[in-house]
Amino acid sequence: MLNIAKIYDAAKVLNKIAKKTDLIQSKTIIEDKELYLKSENLQVTGSFKLRGAYYKISKLTDEQKAKGIIACSAGNHAQGVALAAQKSGIKATIFIPATAPISKVEATRKYGADIKLIDGVYDDAYKAALEFQKETQGEFIHPFDDEDVIAGQGTIGLEILEQLPDIDSVIVPIGGGGLISGIAYAMKQLKPSCKIYGVQAQGAGSMYQSFINKKILELPAVHTFADGTAVKRPGDLTFELCEKYVDDIVTVSDDEVASAILSLMEKQKIVAEGAGALSVAAAMFGKVPLTDKTVCIVSGGNIDVNILSRVINRGLLTAGRLSHLTIELLDKPGQLKDVSTTIAQYGANVIRVRHNQGGGHTDINACFLQISMETKNTQHFEEIKQALISKGYKITSDV
Amino acid sequence: MLNIAKIYDAAKVLNKIAKKTDLIQSKTIIEDKELYLKSENLQVTGSFKLRGAYYKISKLTDEQKAKGIIACSAGNHAQGVALAAQKSGIKATIFIPATAPISKVEATRKYGADIKLIDGVYDDAYKAALEFQKETQGEFIHPFDDEDVIAGQGTIGLEILEQLPDIDSVIVPIGGGGLISGIAYAMKQLKPSCKIYGVQAQGAGSMYQSFINKKILELPAVHTFADGTAVKRPGDLTFELCEKYVDDIVTVSDDEVASAILSLMEKQKIVAEGAGALSVAAAMFGKVPLTDKTVCIVSGGNIDVNILSRVINRGLLTAGRLSHLTIELLDKPGQLKDVSTTIAQYGANVIRVRHNQGGGHTDINACFLQISMETKNTQHFEEIKQALISKGYKITSDV
Repeated sequence: MLNIAKIYDAAKVLNKIAKKTDLIQSKTIIEDKELYLKSENLQVTGSFKLRGAYYKISKLTDEQKAKGIIACSAGNHAQGVALAAQKSGIKATIFIPATAPISKVEATRKYGADIKLIDGVYDDAYKAALEFQKETQGEFIHPFDDEDVIAGQGTIGLEILEQLPDIDSVIVPIGGGGLISGIAYAMKQLKPSCKIYGVQAQGAGSMYQSFINKKILELPAVHTFADGTAVKRPGDLTFELCEKYVDDIVTVSDDEVASAILSLMEKQKIVAEGAGALSVAAAMFGKVPLTDKTVCIVSGGNIDVNILSRVINRGLLTAGRLSHLTIELLDKPGQLKDVSTTIAQYGANVIRVRHNQGGGHTDINACFLQISMETKNTQHFEEIKQALISKGYKITSDV
Repeated sequence: MLNIAKIYDAAKVLNKIAKKTDLIQSKTIIEDKELYLKSENLQVTGSFKLRGAYYKISKLTDEQKAKGIIACSAGNHAQGVALAAQKSGIKATIFIPATAPISKVEATRKYGADIKLIDGVYDDAYKAALEFQKETQGEFIHPFDDEDVIAGQGTIGLEILEQLPDIDSVIVPIGGGGLISGIAYAMKQLKPSCKIYGVQAQGAGSMYQSFINKKILELPAVHTFADGTAVKRPGDLTFELCEKYVDDIVTVSDDEVASAILSLMEKQKIVAEGAGALSVAAAMFGKVPLTDKTVCIVSGGNIDVNILSRVINRGLLTAGRLSHLTIELLDKPGQLKDVSTTIAQYGANVIRVRHNQGGGHTDINACFLQISMETKNTQHFEEIKQALISKGYKITSDV
């Protein structure tokens, strides 16, 4: 049974392996409000998952260890298990769906794990992992629904209490619920007054749905770019612990998560993945009541830079700092020069221009000028548009 | 005169104001080699500049303080001075060229400084600042060529020695030379065996040129995206200290800096600006001899996200993870479908397609298909190109 002694034991075991991550005080993410960020994105392997995996392995018998361990994951759990096995000197076989980003596969391979790339999606890899487990009798390391794994994640709670004894609330991302179960249990034992809030992505709210319906529900499908939390069904143990120790669970949209990632980069200079920024998104967008000493768990930073680039672009568009404009020109000389002069006068920086002849339903003489430019903010973009309109240009699109 | 007691005094003064930034151990930025990153990008205000500015202000007389302080900067120095003045309860007037990114202006304003936006470039703002200084008799805070400022930056050296007593080399970004002067002085007093290497951007190598020519040289122009180090002439005092205490100075290209920024984001989950990543670029690209205990100073993280987005795109292109392809099609039905089927079979993710009729010098029936896609690596992109060529398509561009 989970008990506080087990979490203290996990902290002792993890002492030399996991980093005691910084509790970063932020005064800029939310104006006039202090937030504390528990930076598990700066943890070894880029997420908290190492904690649970390593503690779990430490509790295996020598006989179990000799047979090796098995995991199935395309993400943080894979890296956590791989490094934990390497540090424990035992063999890890990790099943990964072949569609996983190459960067995550390579990171896992570097920690010395034996990688099995399985054609198809997660469920196919999971099936292959179970077959392999039957064959080898190795120990399957569950990503969240396991008492020892939960105890490992709970060590984050102990660290926060040491770093900020007068904490009064903590906001925790939820996928399967292992992280919040450990933290909530530790907090409610040691500081019952501390509120525990869970956050899920709107497109992957399995624990949220289960929590408000007071019974475990399985979602038919999940869809979010916070891919580390795309879990269809919460664990039995984690659901039980959430029911008991979590005060409330809320959801945030993917756009809110993208804004949170951008804020963390610009204002705190740290990189968070979608799952890792759920907590900050909930704080920024008023999903939970903020108190004086609120801690957001930034659970991981393993975001594919392809996606990061899209997140930045989306954030820049939202803030009016990147703007697209399509202008209908009459097909006569001098118009391109005139438009670009106007834009230059307003101090915007043109980064792409395309000049196309018109399509089917336009004036036969028309052509279109598509311009992408760096602008200062939405008001700046508005001024440029008005200047062009007052010169007689027709703007056919501004998104 | 600069002496080690002054640097210890600065450390005492800065104790409650500046963060003792983490010395992050990195095993992944360079394979088979441990690096240590002194994370001044995670410092309050996003750079080390607060240290020197605050210590400088602390040494002013009450009379000087009453007249207020003045600075001229579009970047980290502005934010450092503004917060230092706010914390000291005195008035700061900061001159900023109007071309500065709005995000930096706003960040400085938030620390309570009086901002004067001056039309033109840095030199115009500097001129206005000097006029204002004459008028008000306020204290002008030099960004680097000042003994107290240098002593403040030198506190980083003391911290590193505490965090890694057996350090054997340190790599430091150079703009005007204030940072490296302070660190080099502290190190050579307390641990003379520690090698000190300076790094500048190739397009802004004023200290580098002065160092190898053994006399102060002023560059006619500087150009680098590591904008925090774009200084045309080193300081008199900083040049003298570099001559005495720095072992070598090297330069890196903007592309090398971009790669370093990308590595810091992907592997360490931290955001560095161009200037801040100079040291890591020098280590990654073999510009200085690496030892067992090498510390890279990551001096700042205040990068405009517009630029960060470009850095990511460039890095992705270099690694073959984002690929562009222009294919000449015969203008007949079914070709678009055929090409996209081939790309899908190879598992690439198409993110943009443009389909244009040909220009002047091509077959009158030809049209061009421009495709941008996410690929796994350069080899993956090569496979896709070969598959298309073997089907008879003519690739007219792959950049």
